[in-house]
Amino acid sequence: MATINMGKPILDKNDRLAAENRAAFDAAGVFVLDLMASPGAGKTSTILATIAALRERYRIAVIEGDVASKVDAEKIKAHGIPAVQINTGGACHLEADVIARAVGQLDLDGLDLIIVENVGNLICPTEFYLGEHAKVMILSVPEGHDKPYKYPQIFQISEAVILNKIDTLPVFDFNEDEFRSVVSSLNPTAEVFALSATAGTGVAPWAAWLAGRIEDVRAAALSSGGLK
Amino acid sequence: MATINMGKPILDKNDRLAAENRAAFDAAGVFVLDLMASPGAGKTSTILATIAALRERYRIAVIEGDVASKVDAEKIKAHGIPAVQINTGGACHLEADVIARAVGQLDLDGLDLIIVENVGNLICPTEFYLGEHAKVMILSVPEGHDKPYKYPQIFQISEAVILNKIDTLPVFDFNEDEFRSVVSSLNPTAEVFALSATAGTGVAPWAAWLAGRIEDVRAAALSSGGLK
Repeated sequence: MATINMGKPILDKNDRLAAENRAAFDAAGVFVLDLMASPGAGKTSTILATIAALRERYRIAVIEGDVASKVDAEKIKAHGIPAVQINTGGACHLEADVIARAVGQLDLDGLDLIIVENVGNLICPTEFYLGEHAKVMILSVPEGHDKPYKYPQIFQISEAVILNKIDTLPVFDFNEDEFRSVVSSLNPTAEVFALSATAGTGVAPWAAWLAGRIEDVRAAALSSGGLK
Repeated sequence: MATINMGKPILDKNDRLAAENRAAFDAAGVFVLDLMASPGAGKTSTILATIAALRERYRIAVIEGDVASKVDAEKIKAHGIPAVQINTGGACHLEADVIARAVGQLDLDGLDLIIVENVGNLICPTEFYLGEHAKVMILSVPEGHDKPYKYPQIFQISEAVILNKIDTLPVFDFNEDEFRSVVSSLNPTAEVFALSATAGTGVAPWAAWLAGRIEDVRAAALSSGGLK
C-alpha cells in the first residue's frame, strides 16, 4: 500500500512561559490539569462530574478553551465555580501565554485545583506545555476503539485516560479489551478510568486519583514553606 | 464573564499548488471531495457507504489522511477500491502538496471521483484548500448538537453537512431541530443529510447529491474537449 509521510512540523516553543506558569502553580499549591479530547467526547460533562465529586474538599476553578462561544464557561459558572473562557479564534490548541492571562483573572491563593479544558482536538494540544502538572485525555465510546492507532501521541503523553460514555457500550461496536490493550502498549503507566460522566457511574476512582495528585502538590508547597 | 481572544494565526498559503491540483482534476473530469470530521464521527464508514451506493456508476478512489496508521486505507482496499494512505506525522490537516503526491499514485484518467478523508479534526482542515471541488463535513449524533456554536467555521465552509449515526438518536440528548436551525443560520445554502452510514439508512439522498456534482464536473470536462 502506498504511504506518504509528511514529517513533523517545527513548533514554536512556549516552554519558558509554561515554566513560569508552573512555578506560580507550585508556589500556590494549586494542581493544574490539562484535559484534552475530541469535540463531543464529554470534556465539560466530565469536569462537572469531577466538580461534583471534589467540590466539598477542594477549591476549584476552570479555564475553558474553545475556538468560539462561551457555552462551556457558562455551564461551569451555573454551578457556582469560577470559570474563564478563552476563545482561540481559530487556533486548535491553548498556549502558555493565554493560560497566564486567564490565571491572572483567578485568585490563585484561593484555589486547590484548576482544570483547563483544552480545545476539542486529539492532535494540536499534545504539542504544547501549558505549565500543567498532568495532561489527561478522554476518549468516548462512540469514537471507536481504533483511535489509539490513529492518534498515538495523545495516548502516550496522558498520565490518565478516561473512557467516557460507557453507558453506551451496548449501542456501539467498541472492544474495551482491545482498547485497554493498545493504550497499555502505547503507555504502560497510564491509568484508565471507565466512566459515564452524565450518569455518574465510575467517577469515584477517577476523582480519587485526582485528589491524590492535588494532595501531592499541596504537600510540596507546604514543605517548601510557600503556602500560607 | 471573562473572555480572552487569542486572534487568528497567520497561515501558510498553499493555494498555488491547490490550483494546480484543481486544474488537473478538471481536465480529467474527476470530482474531488474533501471530507472532514472529528475523530470517530464515521468518515471511513460514510466513505464505504458512499462507495456502495455509487461504485456501479462511477470509478472511485480514496486518499486517506491520518496522523499515523494505515487502518483506514486497508479498510477501503479490502473493498477493491484504490486507496493511498497519507501519514501526516503529527500535522492536524492535509495540504495541497501531499495531495499532489498521492494523486500521482492514482490513474486520474481512469477515475470519476476521489474522496479525500482529511485528518480527524474540526479546526485545522478548514484552513487549507487542496484543489477539491467541495468540502463536506460529518457531525455524528454522539458529539452533540452544540458543536456548530463551538466550531462555526467548518459548518460555514462545507457545501453539505452529513449528520451521521442517526440510529443512535434515541440514546443521546441531541436536538436535531436546533442543530439544523444553527447550521442553517451559519450556512443558509448548506444541504444537511441525516443518515446512518453503518445501518445504510438515509444514504441515497447524499449519494444523489454527490452524483449530481460528479456529473457537473464530467460535463464541464467534456464540453471543454479535454475528456477522452
